[in-house]
Amino acid sequence: MYKNNRAHNFNPGPAAMPEPVLEQLRDEMLNYAGTGMSVMEMSHRSKEFEDIVHRAEADLRTLLNIPESYSIAFLQGGANLQFAMAPMNLLPQDGSADYVLTGNWSQTAIKEAQKIGKVHIAASTQDGNFNRIPAPSELQLDPHAAYLHFTSNETIQGVEWPSEPVLPDGAPLVSDASSDIVSRPIDVTKYGLIYAGAQKNLGPSGVVVAIIRNDLFERIPANLPAMLDYKVLAESHSLHNTPPTFGVYAVGLVLKWLIDIGGVAEIQKRNEAKAKRVYDVIDASGGFYRGHAQPDSRSRMNVTFRLPTEELEKHFVKKSEAEGLVGLKGHRSVGGLRASLYNALPLASAEALAEFMREFQRTNG
Amino acid sequence: MYKNNRAHNFNPGPAAMPEPVLEQLRDEMLNYAGTGMSVMEMSHRSKEFEDIVHRAEADLRTLLNIPESYSIAFLQGGANLQFAMAPMNLLPQDGSADYVLTGNWSQTAIKEAQKIGKVHIAASTQDGNFNRIPAPSELQLDPHAAYLHFTSNETIQGVEWPSEPVLPDGAPLVSDASSDIVSRPIDVTKYGLIYAGAQKNLGPSGVVVAIIRNDLFERIPANLPAMLDYKVLAESHSLHNTPPTFGVYAVGLVLKWLIDIGGVAEIQKRNEAKAKRVYDVIDASGGFYRGHAQPDSRSRMNVTFRLPTEELEKHFVKKSEAEGLVGLKGHRSVGGLRASLYNALPLASAEALAEFMREFQRTNG
Repeated sequence: MYKNNRAHNFNPGPAAMPEPVLEQLRDEMLNYAGTGMSVMEMSHRSKEFEDIVHRAEADLRTLLNIPESYSIAFLQGGANLQFAMAPMNLLPQDGSADYVLTGNWSQTAIKEAQKIGKVHIAASTQDGNFNRIPAPSELQLDPHAAYLHFTSNETIQGVEWPSEPVLPDGAPLVSDASSDIVSRPIDVTKYGLIYAGAQKNLGPSGVVVAIIRNDLFERIPANLPAMLDYKVLAESHSLHNTPPTFGVYAVGLVLKWLIDIGGVAEIQKRNEAKAKRVYDVIDASGGFYRGHAQPDSRSRMNVTFRLPTEELEKHFVKKSEAEGLVGLKGHRSVGGLRASLYNALPLASAEALAEFMREFQRTNG
Repeated sequence: MYKNNRAHNFNPGPAAMPEPVLEQLRDEMLNYAGTGMSVMEMSHRSKEFEDIVHRAEADLRTLLNIPESYSIAFLQGGANLQFAMAPMNLLPQDGSADYVLTGNWSQTAIKEAQKIGKVHIAASTQDGNFNRIPAPSELQLDPHAAYLHFTSNETIQGVEWPSEPVLPDGAPLVSDASSDIVSRPIDVTKYGLIYAGAQKNLGPSGVVVAIIRNDLFERIPANLPAMLDYKVLAESHSLHNTPPTFGVYAVGLVLKWLIDIGGVAEIQKRNEAKAKRVYDVIDASGGFYRGHAQPDSRSRMNVTFRLPTEELEKHFVKKSEAEGLVGLKGHRSVGGLRASLYNALPLASAEALAEFMREFQRTNG
């Protein structure tokens, strides 16, 4: 265990939160800012909550340098609902959208989009068991595509786009950034839509952040249910209906924490340092630890690796848990091991894992 | 102010939470049950969280005596998304659904349902400015209706169905019970679907409870997006994707609190006692306070009333806030005053309001 009986938390999401944020949530639980109420108990139409949501929006705008030509909305339903909402809003009935297939999450996005409209697979890495991001030359783009959808980081396989796919003019980029949003600087102006479930880098589950270029609102078909319509949700500043108030507040505190420590440039350095600690052990293990991702597609957020036998993998999980390192079991769909190193995970936890891995190899290698 | 600087919280939702629940959430914020993690930081696939969601489901089943032929799901998107999901799942393309129009919320439900399919208004009280629930004889039922939808309590107007509409065999009852669920016993077997946003009687916003009769799953069209499909969501026990874990946990604690104090029979008594305190002041005021709802349609959850002038109403809001009674301003769409007296509001708060109202009349009447 880490200090104060806190675990080294490698959960893939919901995941570790910054401790100062949890402490503030704790201290204000029965009385927020002298209101005599928890944030949970306040009307979403109160001045206090409107301030909270506007501050969260402004802080995200600052962190990612989001221009005024984009709207921000805090939504519900996870990235899974976005898999349907993106095509419902942006894919015309007679159109087609390009999707890049790089792992479980893009696969689910494609499956949901196919229920709504026509999907063209612009590239796939399924042949290699999703162990890499396709090269730019592999993208077979439809020149009339309504948009190109990609998953900036595949949480389950542990592969991450080093930078956005390069597109010809016209087709907006749509990104599921659930597991690497605000982990590094990005150029938002390259995107039409970015969506991300909060439960990895932004806060608790139950909140989704959507960043959408305002001119895309024109595509939205009439008569979409209000709760599935990006324009309704964004133009009301997330107050069309009752938002998940406490979750939005927690996300706002995480964004503020991120600004306080130095923003996305600083967190990028920290994330690279953490990932290096773990990948270095894999690379120095002489094949005892086998990384799943090809080196140039390695995720800084989710380090996926195997051991020589499944029995050793089980032993690794059990022993690591006994030492207070939790969440290292790989996703049930692929097996193996996975260390998630999101923004809020301290460097000390990555170092504890590296040390544990070296020791485990010494004992079991 | 109440004890410990806590406000008398008459917010219409998000609303007052039971203090013991907030205290537990506070005490466990950095370490839930010795895990070294907040509930927010735990995987939704962990044993701990699966226990949480199963316990919440079981406790709701106990409280409302829900038979095994019904499923329970914890969803997202508020009642607003349910306004679309109910017809998407249960209204066949060539069918029609009956809706009863009794106030703002049923009006919004109707507007969203009309985007999906055919709606027949079985009764409306719009003529009387939504100040009552229609009599059974007023219901013009379509014998072929896919279902009949009603809003068991209209939060904004403060009118509440004394009991369910009586239907001929066949058409299932669909109820938006957001603002009076678990406030009294109901006979679940009369319903096809009950849905309720959590933020009034069940916990924080961002969670919706749906109780659905399993045979209705057969109606669900193929190829609905997974996140809009009751069967997918219910059969996975709310774990198809990452649920709002902390919100579901808080709802679970509220349900447990309710069981501990004696269940829905006990809370019904308390709710009636609270409502009586406030309505008695209105009835004894000689017309100074004018209740919006007709006496036999009065809501036990939301007491709506006017004062002789709008100026006095503003003064009432200001003065009550200064004395620590918050959330008494009526909804922006109807004006006036509204006292929401949900499950978690203590009797002492209703008594404080009654006393304040009497004193306000003495000074300003």
